[in-house]
Order: sequence, then C-alpha cells, then structure tokens
Amino acid sequence: MASKRKSEVFGITHRDKKSLARAGELNTAHGRILTPFFMPVATKGSVKHLSLDEVEAFGVRCMISNSFIFYLRPGLETIQHAHGLHQFMGWKHGLFTDSGGFQILDDTFLHSRSEEGVILNNPFNNNTRELYTPEKAMQVQNTLGSDVAMVLDDVPKFGTSKPFITETLARTLKWAKRCKAAHDNDKQLVFGISQGGTYVDLRRKGIAALNKLNFDGMALGGMAIGEPKETMQKVIDAIREEIPENKPVYVMGLGSPEDIIKAIHSGIDIFDSCFPSRIARHGTAMTWSGRVSIENLKYQHDFSRLDEHCDCRVCKEHTKAYIHHLCKNREETGFRLVTFHNIYFVQKLIEKSRQAICEGTFAAFAKQFLKRYQQTPMK
Amino acid sequence: MASKRKSEVFGITHRDKKSLARAGELNTAHGRILTPFFMPVATKGSVKHLSLDEVEAFGVRCMISNSFIFYLRPGLETIQHAHGLHQFMGWKHGLFTDSGGFQILDDTFLHSRSEEGVILNNPFNNNTRELYTPEKAMQVQNTLGSDVAMVLDDVPKFGTSKPFITETLARTLKWAKRCKAAHDNDKQLVFGISQGGTYVDLRRKGIAALNKLNFDGMALGGMAIGEPKETMQKVIDAIREEIPENKPVYVMGLGSPEDIIKAIHSGIDIFDSCFPSRIARHGTAMTWSGRVSIENLKYQHDFSRLDEHCDCRVCKEHTKAYIHHLCKNREETGFRLVTFHNIYFVQKLIEKSRQAICEGTFAAFAKQFLKRYQQTPMK
Repeated sequence: MASKRKSEVFGITHRDKKSLARAGELNTAHGRILTPFFMPVATKGSVKHLSLDEVEAFGVRCMISNSFIFYLRPGLETIQHAHGLHQFMGWKHGLFTDSGGFQILDDTFLHSRSEEGVILNNPFNNNTRELYTPEKAMQVQNTLGSDVAMVLDDVPKFGTSKPFITETLARTLKWAKRCKAAHDNDKQLVFGISQGGTYVDLRRKGIAALNKLNFDGMALGGMAIGEPKETMQKVIDAIREEIPENKPVYVMGLGSPEDIIKAIHSGIDIFDSCFPSRIARHGTAMTWSGRVSIENLKYQHDFSRLDEHCDCRVCKEHTKAYIHHLCKNREETGFRLVTFHNIYFVQKLIEKSRQAICEGTFAAFAKQFLKRYQQTPMK
Repeated sequence: MASKRKSEVFGITHRDKKSLARAGELNTAHGRILTPFFMPVATKGSVKHLSLDEVEAFGVRCMISNSFIFYLRPGLETIQHAHGLHQFMGWKHGLFTDSGGFQILDDTFLHSRSEEGVILNNPFNNNTRELYTPEKAMQVQNTLGSDVAMVLDDVPKFGTSKPFITETLARTLKWAKRCKAAHDNDKQLVFGISQGGTYVDLRRKGIAALNKLNFDGMALGGMAIGEPKETMQKVIDAIREEIPENKPVYVMGLGSPEDIIKAIHSGIDIFDSCFPSRIARHGTAMTWSGRVSIENLKYQHDFSRLDEHCDCRVCKEHTKAYIHHLCKNREETGFRLVTFHNIYFVQKLIEKSRQAICEGTFAAFAKQFLKRYQQTPMK
C-alpha cells in the first residue's frame, strides 16, 4: 500500500478544549466516515429487527459484520457470487469485519489454540473443526471486501491468570505480524488489536509492538468482557497515549451510552456493540433521561413519548403505553420499535458528541449527559 | 342513526364489464376507504414485524383489530385513558374491530355457548370465565371507538352437523338483533355477519333475516376455516345476490391472492387475513409469478429480486440470496423483509384490481393474474 494513501486514511479536524475528545474523518473505499462513530452490529448481515435503509436513514455510515460467521454461513462462495459483502447485504457505506478472534471467547466455537492459529468448531456443520489462521482470517476478509479488516487476535477471558494473558498477548502479536504480511488489498484498511487484559504493562508492551507494524488503526480488544467498568476506563486512560495521535482508535464492544461518552472523553474514535439492540429485545430503551424498562407496569397508562427529547419516528408516533402493551404481549413489533429507537438514539448521541467536540464544549456536554442519564434510577 | 347519513356510507362508482366486480367507497369516521380493500390484521394493535407508518405508506387505509383480545389485554381502562384505539395505536385511518365471535373457534378461548352469550376463558388471567354477550361486544367496541364494529356471531367449526349449524345460525341472528338494539354510536358503523357453514339454504335464510336489520354492511363469516376452496367459492357465488347491491360485502379471513381475486370477481368488497404475515414468518413470499419459499436451497446463489415485478423497498434493495441467508439463520430481519413485501404485495394486488375494475377490464386482469400465480409450482 502506497504511503501516500496511508497518510490520507485518518485525519483529525477538531479537538475538544477540556478533554482528549477529537473529531475527524476516516476515509474508506466506501466513503468518508466522520469520527467519532458507532457501528451497529450486523454479525450475520442484518441489524436485528431493522432494514438497512432505516439504519442508513438514521445517519449511520458504518456497520460491522463478522467474517468468521460469514465464512461458516453462507460461506465465501455465496459472497463471491454476490461480488462482496456490501453487495450481498445491499449496503453502500463503510463496513468493518471482525476477524473471528471474538469467537475465541465463546465456548460454542472455541476448540483449542495453537501457535498456528485457533481451532474453532463449526456449529453449523456438526462441530467439524476448522484451523483458522491469521492468513486465513485475512484471506476471508479480503474475499468479503470489507473496508476495514481486523487482525486475528487471541482474546483471553476476563479473570484468567497473568501468565496465560501474557501467552495470549505474545500469540496476538505474532498473529498481527502474519496478518500484516498476508494482507494484499489496497482498498481495504487493516486495524491491529491490542490485548493484555486489564494489565497496563502488558497492554503497553503490546501496543508498542503493534505500533511498529504501522496498522491503519488501533483497536482495543478484550474490553467490556466482564471486568469492572472503572477498571476498563482506567486501562483505556493509561494506554491511550501509547497510541500515535494520527491513528484512529477503536474500542471493540462498547455500546452503553455512559461507556461511549467516557471513552470519547478519553480520545476514542470508533465503537461497536450489540448492546443497544440486545437490551431493546429485553424491552429496555435508552433515553436522554436514562434507561426505561418499558415492560414495567408503571407504563401501562403512560401516554407520554418513549423519550420526550427524541425525534425518531417511534417517539413521534407512539406512546410508552402502546409499546408497553406490545412488548408485554411479545409482539415482534414492540421489540422492533425499541430497537429502532435505541439505534437511532446512539447515532444521535454520537452526532451530538461530535458537534460538541467541534464547538469545543464536549467536556461540558459529557458531564451534563452523564448526570442526567445516570441519575435516573433503573425503572 | 339518521337515514340520511346511512345513504352515504357506501357508494359504488364503477362496475367491471365481465364480472360482478365493483369499485366504490366506504365512508367512515376516519376517512373514505376505496373498495375493494384488504385489511392487514393488527389483532393486538400491531402488524407483526412492521411499523404502522410503513403500512400507511403502502397505501393501506384500513386495518382490523380484535375487540375481545383488547378487552382482555390491556383492558378497556387503558384504551379509555388513550381516548380510543386509534390514538392508542397511533393510527389515523379506518379501523374495523372483530367482535370476539372468531374466538369461539379457538379452544383456548371457548368454554361454552349459551343463549345469553358465549362463555370464554381468559387465558391471560388463569382462565377465569367471561360471559361475553352481544351487548357487551357492542359496548366494548364502542369504547374502542373503531370505525366499523362487527356483531357478535356464533361461529360453528367446519364439519359440524347441519342441526348444530342451524342452532348456531339461530343464535347468530338473535345476537345480531340484540347487537343492533344495543349499538349507540353514530360515528361507528355496524356490520352484520352471515353464518350457516357451507349450507346455502341456511346462509340464505340468515342473510334474509340480517337484511331486515339493515346493517351498514354484510360480512360473510365462518369462511376459509377448513372447507375446500371450491366449496367456499360456490357458497359465495350462491349467496352473493341475496345481499342488497348497496351494501358493502366483507368476506372475513380471506387472504391468499387467489381467494381475493376470485372473491372480487364475485362482487366482494372487503377482505382481511393474517395469511400474508403468517406465511412470511414461515419464509414464503407472494410474488406476481407465484409463491416463493425463500428458504429453499435453490435461492442460495440467486441474486435476482424477490419479485422482479414489485417495486417495494425490499425488492429494490435486496436479493433472494440475502433474504434466504437471513431466514435460514433465523434473523428477525429476514422474516420482517418477507412480511414487508407480502403486505405491500397484497395492497398493490388490490389497487391493481381496483384500477382494472374502473377500466372495466377486471375479468381479464383476474384471469391473467391467476394463470401466472397458480401456474408456478410451489418452490
């Protein structure tokens, strides 16, 4: 990849006055994406309950899919026939693909690790085993044609021993090097992934090694997997400055409004999580005044909007009482409406954050948002 | 209700040249609805997987909900607080409510019949029993504020004996009279319901009695409940002319494209059915070339549109292969996309039928449609 092009991948355009927050742009083969941004999760090619044109209409310009899952099902042949994952899904904008590293955390998939790669079960095919190597991960993502490929990483569960985490970090770094060597697609960016659990010394060591490989961006992996939130925040703050200023930084798996706002405050640019969708399917809405558990009996006769500060179609057209009724009755549309609102909400939260950064007032915006969002007890 | 207003309820504007098909308009408190029309089913207040603004955007101007189900859950108090069912749901257009008669067919609900009314179980409240009378059915629908209320009818299962069907017909007629007497809402129309199973003599006798009560419209109930389709069609044709020309005729529960087209041909004006939604949730799409079972392996690499003659968003933006993939993976969005297409398809089928009637060419349109739709073998 020409170094000329590299320099254009990411640019910072604005910095907040009283925090590390920054606004910029990531340039991909499918267009410019303003940072910070949040990616809705389309693991299998859809954001559950929504159509992609709805997600697009919210202003979302980047999503993330899972390359290992697509490799298993429907398989690369289908995606090749479709001329890539964008065409297969009918999505015109930015698309990240995760590598399959995250499946290491999932006992359904993990069989064992080796230096060569990870041995994963294929639950769609009688658990036949699949040696998934860094080279394979790159080849699969190349075929999918995502705008940003992630290296294959070895993710340790939270709570495993430091020696084990050290071992997985060493493997992650070797695999990152092999991914870099195997990658051969100048239309696709590649992000490295930091591992090392909650050990700041391991994280720093890993980031130093990844920096030398000069990836297009840096992801912090193995976060939000069970560790206390304060610990996660401390680790992010302690390692943030190890990453070169001119690289976009992506914390994988962060999706609660508080986490996103705090991480933007610490200078993080990119987010993804299935959290807004998952809690929607359990009847929980994110609102500008905190979370609303819509199945709570107190909403039975509450004819106010789901979120009085939101202008999404759900909030404009329906009441809490109606959505309460649908969710209590297990009507798919009820969960769809909450999902619709939540994905819209996170997109607007990011857009307002970006605007505040551009105006230099993000720190105050964040403080005010968190006060309001967190003060409200779980309802 | 003043006879002046009555005369404006329904008017025929066009007649087909070579069939009994007719186009007209039904005037309700929530606007004029062009006939023929198909009502998507929102039993509990939502068309499964869709938002009501989507249904509205398709051109749908009338839906049907179930008053007995709403009576049980969330209960009338909630609807009263909301100032009626339209407001509760956020629906501005026409709304029918079924009376609860249909629940007589459902063993979950039916406890027993009496002359006074039907004794129904409340499955949401430990199967406590509920004597549901004609007066109650009218009172509930009055509170819901639907545009068209249905009388409470006694629906016999298909295959029961003629003496039993005669008995249920007698009860249906007595209840219809009581409904008429109990109804007191000049903004709400009331439709009578014909019963009598597949016995033309019973149907005729019932319709004659209902005609004397001068309802705003006539529904044919107890259809499409297991009898052969040819039988149903013959019964419709044999009794159609017993109903005065100036009354709108509604066959309850008809939702397959063939059934709808044939019934329009016989002079039917109004339809409702959960069929288009239900088959969508089993991965079956209705198309202008016949049914498509999208989970069939043959669609794995089929990058054509779901329906090449359809201009709905799903057909414009996605392929069979993508929808196949989502449905095979049990992604909610897959079933949502098929539902979206099917409800759109039926709406357009009705609109095209209406246009053909206005142009006097419906008989040819129907013939051509049926040839194409039915020729295609189940895929």
